[in-house]
Amino acid sequence: MSPADGAHGVRLRRLGIDTRQEATLFMRRDCAICRSEGFAAHSRVLVHFNGRSLIATLNQVTTNIIANGEASLSENAWQRLGVREGDEVTVSHPSPVESLGHVRAKLYGNRLDAPSMRAVLDDVVAERYSDIHLAAFVSACSGNNLDDEEILSLTAAMVETGERLQWDRSPVVDKHCVGGLPGNRTTPIVVPIVAACGLTMPKTSSRAITSPAGTADVMETLAPIALDLATMRRVVEREGACIVWGGAVRLAPADDIFIRVERALDIDSEGQLVASVLSKKVAAGSTHLVLDLPVGPTAKVRGPHAAERLETLLFYTSRAFGIEVRVLRSDGTQPVGRGIGPALEARDVLAVLQGDDGGLADLRARSLALAAAILELAGVSPEGGGMALAEAVLADGRAWRKFQAICDAQGGLREPPTAPYTRPVPAPRGGRIVAIDNRRIARVAKLAGAPDDPAAGIELHAAVGSRVRRGQSLFTVHAESPGELDYAFDYIATNHIVQIEDGD
Amino acid sequence: MSPADGAHGVRLRRLGIDTRQEATLFMRRDCAICRSEGFAAHSRVLVHFNGRSLIATLNQVTTNIIANGEASLSENAWQRLGVREGDEVTVSHPSPVESLGHVRAKLYGNRLDAPSMRAVLDDVVAERYSDIHLAAFVSACSGNNLDDEEILSLTAAMVETGERLQWDRSPVVDKHCVGGLPGNRTTPIVVPIVAACGLTMPKTSSRAITSPAGTADVMETLAPIALDLATMRRVVEREGACIVWGGAVRLAPADDIFIRVERALDIDSEGQLVASVLSKKVAAGSTHLVLDLPVGPTAKVRGPHAAERLETLLFYTSRAFGIEVRVLRSDGTQPVGRGIGPALEARDVLAVLQGDDGGLADLRARSLALAAAILELAGVSPEGGGMALAEAVLADGRAWRKFQAICDAQGGLREPPTAPYTRPVPAPRGGRIVAIDNRRIARVAKLAGAPDDPAAGIELHAAVGSRVRRGQSLFTVHAESPGELDYAFDYIATNHIVQIEDGD
Repeated sequence: MSPADGAHGVRLRRLGIDTRQEATLFMRRDCAICRSEGFAAHSRVLVHFNGRSLIATLNQVTTNIIANGEASLSENAWQRLGVREGDEVTVSHPSPVESLGHVRAKLYGNRLDAPSMRAVLDDVVAERYSDIHLAAFVSACSGNNLDDEEILSLTAAMVETGERLQWDRSPVVDKHCVGGLPGNRTTPIVVPIVAACGLTMPKTSSRAITSPAGTADVMETLAPIALDLATMRRVVEREGACIVWGGAVRLAPADDIFIRVERALDIDSEGQLVASVLSKKVAAGSTHLVLDLPVGPTAKVRGPHAAERLETLLFYTSRAFGIEVRVLRSDGTQPVGRGIGPALEARDVLAVLQGDDGGLADLRARSLALAAAILELAGVSPEGGGMALAEAVLADGRAWRKFQAICDAQGGLREPPTAPYTRPVPAPRGGRIVAIDNRRIARVAKLAGAPDDPAAGIELHAAVGSRVRRGQSLFTVHAESPGELDYAFDYIATNHIVQIEDGD
Repeated sequence: MSPADGAHGVRLRRLGIDTRQEATLFMRRDCAICRSEGFAAHSRVLVHFNGRSLIATLNQVTTNIIANGEASLSENAWQRLGVREGDEVTVSHPSPVESLGHVRAKLYGNRLDAPSMRAVLDDVVAERYSDIHLAAFVSACSGNNLDDEEILSLTAAMVETGERLQWDRSPVVDKHCVGGLPGNRTTPIVVPIVAACGLTMPKTSSRAITSPAGTADVMETLAPIALDLATMRRVVEREGACIVWGGAVRLAPADDIFIRVERALDIDSEGQLVASVLSKKVAAGSTHLVLDLPVGPTAKVRGPHAAERLETLLFYTSRAFGIEVRVLRSDGTQPVGRGIGPALEARDVLAVLQGDDGGLADLRARSLALAAAILELAGVSPEGGGMALAEAVLADGRAWRKFQAICDAQGGLREPPTAPYTRPVPAPRGGRIVAIDNRRIARVAKLAGAPDDPAAGIELHAAVGSRVRRGQSLFTVHAESPGELDYAFDYIATNHIVQIEDGD
């Protein structure tokens, strides 16, 4: 894009303001550009530099932190434009973002066809949407507002607006867990098992949306995960597998833009879920995919009806892209493993890989079931033979050695951090634990700081079915600050998280 | 609200950054608070000062524009908290905004009952919603997503979360135009006519949402409109009427918060429209209301079916609040008057009030029809007698004198500004004008800078039905900058605005 007629030059000064995602231009209210172009605070402006451009939101400055003829950009915009102190950028009116018409149409209940969806995604990935625009699109697509064809077009558009991986081997396997079950961190166990069996598994993972940790958050406490495409490819060529952050390799980059907004709104709906999962898999070049679908009253999928609807959508969409899918429904009634939160879940992963499964039988069993399903789906084991192979590879240390080799290839295995502040939660009465609320325990972990604070979270000491004495510790909260610890305990004081009843 | 445990103090330094609406806190990334509280860029934080508090979005600073132990606030937040340079504020984690659960429920297709709607509005008015949250709520309520009861609860909640006026006289009359018709600026003509006949009309008006000018924008070029409640009351007591900006008197203050977001999204749906109109009228203490509903293929209300649905909603909702309503459907096929844009419409208003209606017969007739309906509805004239009275009051200068008196009471009548840059648009061919596209001509006026630039807009030289020669000027674009003039002409070059055909 070349500067429009009437664009004006301004010298950049780095104020170092981090607005996270939304690109922001800081300019003096009394500067010639604001006056001649009629820019007001919160105007959307087009900033050009050296053949590149981006749309930013204008913040107007009324003091001398920048001089007349100067401007600044938020840190993300500074990096995206590739500018340096003193560079001259030009600023002009952006063209209207025409694809917003499709967002309005969707809000008014109309269907979006494939070209409309693609037009929206083109503008989203080019970061022409403000936070307000993004929130409207995410809202328009939430609930059950997308039909099967729209989910398909959204998925396709998410793939087409990012990078795509191609592999000279087949099958290329993948797994995904639909989430909603705290601590269900099987990926870093499944990947080394199947890779040790010779399969190719270039795993890209997401950060948490509404949960206290995503696989990317957990793996980041163990090894570098923000690999570029070339580095990721080298890791996979050397070790047959990787576990990296999907956002850094720009597979379906729209997904990470939507996730930031979905997180602020705490929504993650069916259509967006299917598009999010499958767009990454299609872009990653996967041919075979096993899905873990935990079902339970407080899991993301609450019952068999919801599970069936989601499976139907997943099969429909994956078939359209030529991916073979197997879905494993699993028990979603309580958290998995001991830890909830990036570093605490990483410790569980290390324990299972190293053969110590005290209190981790559930995490081990789930990981083996998924690995077995992948081995069978990809034809490495006969039907029914996957479990024996997966167990052997885990038991004899091949999986652990493969995991270390993958981490080394990604930049080096490291020790997960430890939280400086911890406080146990005692049982208010004796009895048998009959339920643990997944959503509430996840909420406590988030209030304690997870996933932004990697060491924060929950360490569980008791599972559903076990007996506790009054005063015995049910779980321990870990936090990186006393304020966050207090905050988690304020919530614990007023919400039932662990349900204890009399009897055996 | 008192500072939470674990709140930390920080000294304020005014950077003078205007973010328009969203409150923003600027703090060093390496400061003790960010580290101890685990705040990241874009975190929502609670800022306390002297018994007041607000929720802000955090921008993190990595340079020395603020020192360690210092922070800054965006200009709107600075004013809302009433702070001064060097004041110490405390910063802590805000409680979760519980009413967002209702927004999510609505996005998932559930109905919102009155208490839920009120909870959302309480948080919106307390500015606990970020732009992302506001956009999600506006989206959830757009299209036809609100049923009658929800529109009623939204209206009630908008009234209850703001100030309410009470008058010791009755009737208290009001009017409203549903909009969508550029240049249809009847309010500043209707108010002085009915006030000159002894009626009480405390008129509060909005700024433009998606149009090139709202009544508040137009009146602002003629007199001060940002009056507080006490001043507004004095004006009405002295003159029987006023024409002020609704946002400044905090009648239904949520409306102006929504309008900013609706403008960014360019949506203005039925339910929100009814709630927006009636909440202001209920809060203003109106007892009798006349509505102007222009209907036309490119007006906001496109045909009789949409008009009926809107009328039903308006009657249903206004009855619940004890307001008598009369609806006048009017011709919405083309712009009204000569001017489109704040100052240009103000000049039309002055011309009609002063008896010069060259090219303004439509604006004059519409104003008289509305004034007549109000006079009849309020019982000042018998049915069928309103028009003669309204015409007399306009013709003999009583309305013009009343208008001057109202402006004087509001702070003084002033001259609307004149745009420094104008350029005519010639007819590309000779013939008869068969249509003018309201939406596109409004778009041109907005691209030229209206309503933010008050002098910007369109001056029409020909109406539907008139004949033009090739090269004759159809309309003139007015702008405050050459860049905006160019921008309007880029749009004109590629869009059909005035349709000209052969024949008589």
